[in-house]
Amino acid sequence: MQTLTYKTLKTEVKDRILTITLCRENMNAFNREMLTELLHVFDEADKDDHIRAIIFTGDGKAFCAGADLGRGESSFKNTDTPTNEFRDGGGILSLRVYELKKPIIAAINGAAVGVGATMTLPMDIRIASTKAKIGFVFARRGITPEACSGWFLPRVVGISRAAELVYTGKIVPAEEALNIGLVSRVVEPEDLLSTAREIAKEIAENTSAISVTLSRQLLWKMMGANHPRESHLIESKMIQWTGQQEDVREGINSFFEKRKPNFQMKPSKDLPDFYPWWE
Amino acid sequence: MQTLTYKTLKTEVKDRILTITLCRENMNAFNREMLTELLHVFDEADKDDHIRAIIFTGDGKAFCAGADLGRGESSFKNTDTPTNEFRDGGGILSLRVYELKKPIIAAINGAAVGVGATMTLPMDIRIASTKAKIGFVFARRGITPEACSGWFLPRVVGISRAAELVYTGKIVPAEEALNIGLVSRVVEPEDLLSTAREIAKEIAENTSAISVTLSRQLLWKMMGANHPRESHLIESKMIQWTGQQEDVREGINSFFEKRKPNFQMKPSKDLPDFYPWWE
Amino acid sequence: MQTLTYKTLKTEVKDRILTITLCRENMNAFNREMLTELLHVFDEADKDDHIRAIIFTGDGKAFCAGADLGRGESSFKNTDTPTNEFRDGGGILSLRVYELKKPIIAAINGAAVGVGATMTLPMDIRIASTKAKIGFVFARRGITPEACSGWFLPRVVGISRAAELVYTGKIVPAEEALNIGLVSRVVEPEDLLSTAREIAKEIAENTSAISVTLSRQLLWKMMGANHPRESHLIESKMIQWTGQQEDVREGINSFFEKRKPNFQMKPSKDLPDFYPWWE
Repeated sequence: MQTLTYKTLKTEVKDRILTITLCRENMNAFNREMLTELLHVFDEADKDDHIRAIIFTGDGKAFCAGADLGRGESSFKNTDTPTNEFRDGGGILSLRVYELKKPIIAAINGAAVGVGATMTLPMDIRIASTKAKIGFVFARRGITPEACSGWFLPRVVGISRAAELVYTGKIVPAEEALNIGLVSRVVEPEDLLSTAREIAKEIAENTSAISVTLSRQLLWKMMGANHPRESHLIESKMIQWTGQQEDVREGINSFFEKRKPNFQMKPSKDLPDFYPWWE
Repeated sequence: MQTLTYKTLKTEVKDRILTITLCRENMNAFNREMLTELLHVFDEADKDDHIRAIIFTGDGKAFCAGADLGRGESSFKNTDTPTNEFRDGGGILSLRVYELKKPIIAAINGAAVGVGATMTLPMDIRIASTKAKIGFVFARRGITPEACSGWFLPRVVGISRAAELVYTGKIVPAEEALNIGLVSRVVEPEDLLSTAREIAKEIAENTSAISVTLSRQLLWKMMGANHPRESHLIESKMIQWTGQQEDVREGINSFFEKRKPNFQMKPSKDLPDFYPWWE
Repeated sequence: MQTLTYKTLKTEVKDRILTITLCRENMNAFNREMLTELLHVFDEADKDDHIRAIIFTGDGKAFCAGADLGRGESSFKNTDTPTNEFRDGGGILSLRVYELKKPIIAAINGAAVGVGATMTLPMDIRIASTKAKIGFVFARRGITPEACSGWFLPRVVGISRAAELVYTGKIVPAEEALNIGLVSRVVEPEDLLSTAREIAKEIAENTSAISVTLSRQLLWKMMGANHPRESHLIESKMIQWTGQQEDVREGINSFFEKRKPNFQMKPSKDLPDFYPWWE
């Protein structure tokens, strides 16, 4: 990946892990420029075989304070686009995250509010610092949940917790977020990125990138499947195909030899013909 | 809402919260009259913009002991209606709750058994008194789960907990109900209604009724959607539409002015043309 | 059920509970012969009305170490079957478990790895000994999850826990499996089978076999339904039909008489005409 210069983000690659840090005025508030840049960095990350996992965090005290309210009471006014053509920017972002080839870990360092909260839901894992606070505040602003959170939130925390979060619009501290399953770990602020890196490194050092790319789409796509048979059909293709590739030989041999595997296959060129199977 | 007189219910409106209390012989046992009255009171609540949230509880020691077994071993015999036309009364109730425009909180004060347990599943939030006990006892009576609990129960507690509850038919105390996620809070009996009211007031005092009505249907309907794109399409409509309304101006202005919002839009007349979008 | 002799399993029937114990070289590793024998024993169990519940465990220190890697680096090579016709063996097993008429409890006594982990997911309840360790190690071997785990795993532990387990391929100890909801109880090794038997006996001694068979399919099938109305329609049929049968009379009478029920109806011959309704 080229070290690109963004206006709303900082990026760093180390140990095959890409860290994306939201970095913008107004507590990293979300705007169209940030959306465009995030879509770009995700495309770059997907193309770059060197990158095995992504960490997503915020610069300074906040993670992301939500939509930029710089236009005041007209901040959510989108009348340029005709009805039925307008597409929510948070949703465009969430759908892109949903299709990522790489695992992504949200490291929530501070306030994650509105789209700052919902954008983390299609990410695979959410961990938080003790300073984090998370709020689905839409109903307090007179608007409604976005970024596909209608679909993601009940799947992440269950319908009852989702309902309470959304109807009250309350902001919950890190500890409560942990209790309701909105994040899976809470650590001290200084340990947040290192904890995220440990998870990312466990992926990067031990697993086949091809396996993880196929698995990521399998799990997310099957969340929406009506019958386990749908999973069976695609898994059968995957298991037959992976069973004949170079990575399985390395996987089995390294297991027998009790050493770390050294997988060579690359998502950019070695994915099977049937990927993406859902299109 | 008119202060209506029901035979199987008591109703009270205070602080824009409607409290419905099951009140019938045999531990508030469920019968056709109760069903009819509940359908009526829900219709009234949905029409009345003064009501922002509903609390649902039971009178006396029980919440609801289940179907009235007054006809003895013929209590579940429904041969008046031809097969394929018979519709389970609990299911009619659950589907009505599922379509509600207002958030509803079950405050389980005592025994909630059979339909007394399943009727709470489509409610948004369940809290319980330490005296509550909840049982999906159908298999112990030779019948099967109803009130759409086949759909709701695994979504509320997960398939494995649902299976254990339903196959054993056991009655679980409040503490276990909390541990398995069947209720989200357990409090002393004397604190049950005040706890429910706190949640309801957090909704009533801070949020737009329009936002909550749209959000409630978004969350529940998306529980059954196959792809987050379905959520994206309807959220895009909602966010564009709400972004141009009066409530968003009050939401943003009250936020900037650090005061409670005073939302004016009314679900009875101000919902967008595309509501209900799922029909 | 005839006391059949299997090469890869031991079976025992006691107190109307069938215990199936995986028993094979290489830590009860899974192979085609084990699959064939499991499909056979499940068919026998479904036909035998004496059997009310199934316990599924492993012999010796392991539960099941996964696919037999006896063919070394070619262990997952399946080139005899043309692409698009190959069907994953673990998936065939999972789909058979999914259709079972009897509740099944996995008692995980030791290492459950790869297909040894995924085969437990369509089982209704998983409990574990403190010696258990569970790993979805596919990505460490260069292959992908199977046995319909793409569908089952996110439904059992949630998408975020599923993602972490699958992308890292890590092996988790019993206590962590409990914390993330992968198993519902952890007990000392010497208490594992007695704990499983307690749950199975609670089913066998208190409930109608017809009710449990109908309920099992209701819960699992509704996990994949888009709308609670689907549940309402089939529940209405069930409740009208069961309400007229012999078991409901025994269920209600035993309840009034405060005694254990003695249900007589048999899944082998007394299921309603509409079962299986999903075909």
